[in-house]
Amino acid sequence: MSKLLVAQSGGPTAAINATLAGVLDAATNNPQIDGILGGINGIEGVLKENFLDLTELSNNREKIRILWQTPAAALGSCRWKLKSEDEDAESYKVFVSIMKKYDIGYFVYIGGNDSMDTVDKLSAYCRKNGVENLCIIGAPKTIDNDLVGTDHCPGFGSAAKYIATTIAEIERDCHVYTTKAVTVVEIMGRNAGWLTAASALSRIHGAKGPDMIYLCERPFVLEECISKIRRLFEKQDAVLIAISEGVKDDSGHYISEVLQPADADAFGHVQIAGVATVLADQIKKELGCKTRAIAFNLMQRASASLASKRDLLESYQLGSMAAKAAIAGQSGKMTALRRLQTKDYAVEYELVDVSMVSNREKKVPLRMIAPSGDDVTQEMMDYLLPLIQGLPDISYADGLPLHLSLYE
Amino acid sequence: MSKLLVAQSGGPTAAINATLAGVLDAATNNPQIDGILGGINGIEGVLKENFLDLTELSNNREKIRILWQTPAAALGSCRWKLKSEDEDAESYKVFVSIMKKYDIGYFVYIGGNDSMDTVDKLSAYCRKNGVENLCIIGAPKTIDNDLVGTDHCPGFGSAAKYIATTIAEIERDCHVYTTKAVTVVEIMGRNAGWLTAASALSRIHGAKGPDMIYLCERPFVLEECISKIRRLFEKQDAVLIAISEGVKDDSGHYISEVLQPADADAFGHVQIAGVATVLADQIKKELGCKTRAIAFNLMQRASASLASKRDLLESYQLGSMAAKAAIAGQSGKMTALRRLQTKDYAVEYELVDVSMVSNREKKVPLRMIAPSGDDVTQEMMDYLLPLIQGLPDISYADGLPLHLSLYE
Repeated sequence: MSKLLVAQSGGPTAAINATLAGVLDAATNNPQIDGILGGINGIEGVLKENFLDLTELSNNREKIRILWQTPAAALGSCRWKLKSEDEDAESYKVFVSIMKKYDIGYFVYIGGNDSMDTVDKLSAYCRKNGVENLCIIGAPKTIDNDLVGTDHCPGFGSAAKYIATTIAEIERDCHVYTTKAVTVVEIMGRNAGWLTAASALSRIHGAKGPDMIYLCERPFVLEECISKIRRLFEKQDAVLIAISEGVKDDSGHYISEVLQPADADAFGHVQIAGVATVLADQIKKELGCKTRAIAFNLMQRASASLASKRDLLESYQLGSMAAKAAIAGQSGKMTALRRLQTKDYAVEYELVDVSMVSNREKKVPLRMIAPSGDDVTQEMMDYLLPLIQGLPDISYADGLPLHLSLYE
Repeated sequence: MSKLLVAQSGGPTAAINATLAGVLDAATNNPQIDGILGGINGIEGVLKENFLDLTELSNNREKIRILWQTPAAALGSCRWKLKSEDEDAESYKVFVSIMKKYDIGYFVYIGGNDSMDTVDKLSAYCRKNGVENLCIIGAPKTIDNDLVGTDHCPGFGSAAKYIATTIAEIERDCHVYTTKAVTVVEIMGRNAGWLTAASALSRIHGAKGPDMIYLCERPFVLEECISKIRRLFEKQDAVLIAISEGVKDDSGHYISEVLQPADADAFGHVQIAGVATVLADQIKKELGCKTRAIAFNLMQRASASLASKRDLLESYQLGSMAAKAAIAGQSGKMTALRRLQTKDYAVEYELVDVSMVSNREKKVPLRMIAPSGDDVTQEMMDYLLPLIQGLPDISYADGLPLHLSLYE
């Protein structure tokens, strides 16, 4: 009998608390578990013994139901990255001693790339140093969908659904006027364009969707963009562009930096504007038309109200499986999804070695980008569409969804 | 027997098509109506005889149901403002001749301030010039909630619900890290702060909500804002600010212009950045903390997926009543909502003279703003809360809401 510790890390998603719910459900009333602890603010909080006893919560069905529909990491998150043992042996020793002090035998870490790196390092350290009775398992999470080893990432489906829904809605808004206008929508993704690709789903009911979709996997050429707008303006008034925040030019520089004057700082512009703002400005300058820059910003990862039910269910299962795997004695693994080659969408849940996940990125393969460079292929549509299916049954009171707070 | 013409104008909302559905339902199978026409792109399209026959649509229950849940003006909109008869007598003559040519006896115009001005001018012209058998009625619409003569405006409740829900969601995201950070959210409203006030509703389930809420009715003082952030940072890491796009300083200049360097144009910044960007930059400069600027942009007026059911129902009724009033021979009126002084929320529908609505703005009264200048009062909360109640029953297919397109 020992305790299970769970913590969350990286950028929040609308589904990361469903994964937490899965961990809690699997650990509750398990004869091998005599308590569940939550680490506040990820591994950073764990190393400071910033723990919350979740045992009571895990038995409260009503609260767990609200946890499912609560966006953003309920246990908080951190941006802190565990260094290698060579660089910071102390943190590893502290970690092991804290685990012993609290009688923690199982640690489930929910997160993305960096978090899987932490799982990898800590589990390898325990193995190497003969630390017994401590199993460490990762549960994946990232709206960026860039984790290797899993067909797709928990949280991505909900963000993709937000993007598809919202693009479909604002597209209608953009088309009500007869003035020539370009709307540029910036979507998260520094290195992987999966989320931006999801803007194409807005077309599934026959809507036009974005006129151009620029993913960060392909170099962006401003001249091509401008001449395409010119051509489109011959037959339509409104042009809609979806673009990854991390789009770069052919020498690998971010467009937002390239198109922005180098000495902007002298004007007190302490932050570099996003690519939508910068591109909209450039289009206005070149074509003289009205432009509008929109950034989906935090909304795309926090919009639990528009979550994908399938994403939530899968996220829950991956958390549940992670806890069960740890309790069964597995360590250094991540739970993952394998899509089956069946006619109807189906997945299998599996464990993969976390060492093959950490510090790698799954980018959009070029075959999923249209030859024109400004759209996606049918293969991408087929990949994405199953992930946004279903609406969660959300509890509202007084007109607003209920959320659960675990700590102040 | 004559035809009814309906058109939409001004900025789109999530509820303006519910009003259109109300007009169509009231006119369908009415013995006085022998056809329903839609004017494409508001009065501008009407004057170009850009009509769509809506008679068949009005008998299609399934399509009308999808129309309800379709955001943005399904008949298109315009930014064109009808001049006075002195300045442009020709447009008035053209209007009347088109009405006669198409045998139009009733015209319902759905829109905001400018549209009510059009209703006022055209109905006054008809009265003065003895144009018979032409009744012109306005149905209100604006997310800004700034129309005089009605307790609140159709479209506002849905936008308010989007804002309250989204602030509640992103607030959770902002609080997951332990880094000092300020998030500034820019909300629509050049002259009236109603929508920004709705950010306070995010608190109704005990969440903290925005730390500061700045409406455009009160001069914004940067120093006060900065020192409040300093004080808050002593006890918390994340600070959330909601601010009206139209916030001004005490000499009446937009903050976005005041805080932005005058010679920015030399840098190719053809558009003045929004107040959130400008304020976030300034805060970063003064306090050196991480900042993030978010603009709710088109999402706040297009987010039909998060609409208020009450808003949709009221919007429908106001459209229905407008058509019925026109058919009953009324002209130069706008349909409006009067809130009853009952314990539970209740409204009465009434007709008001459109001349008392046009070219006026209903701002937030100062008594609804907290003495500190950075929050709202309980009276504002009581005013707002009933307006965001209820979820529409939205039809989805393949994971996305269905929308109706009336023309290419």
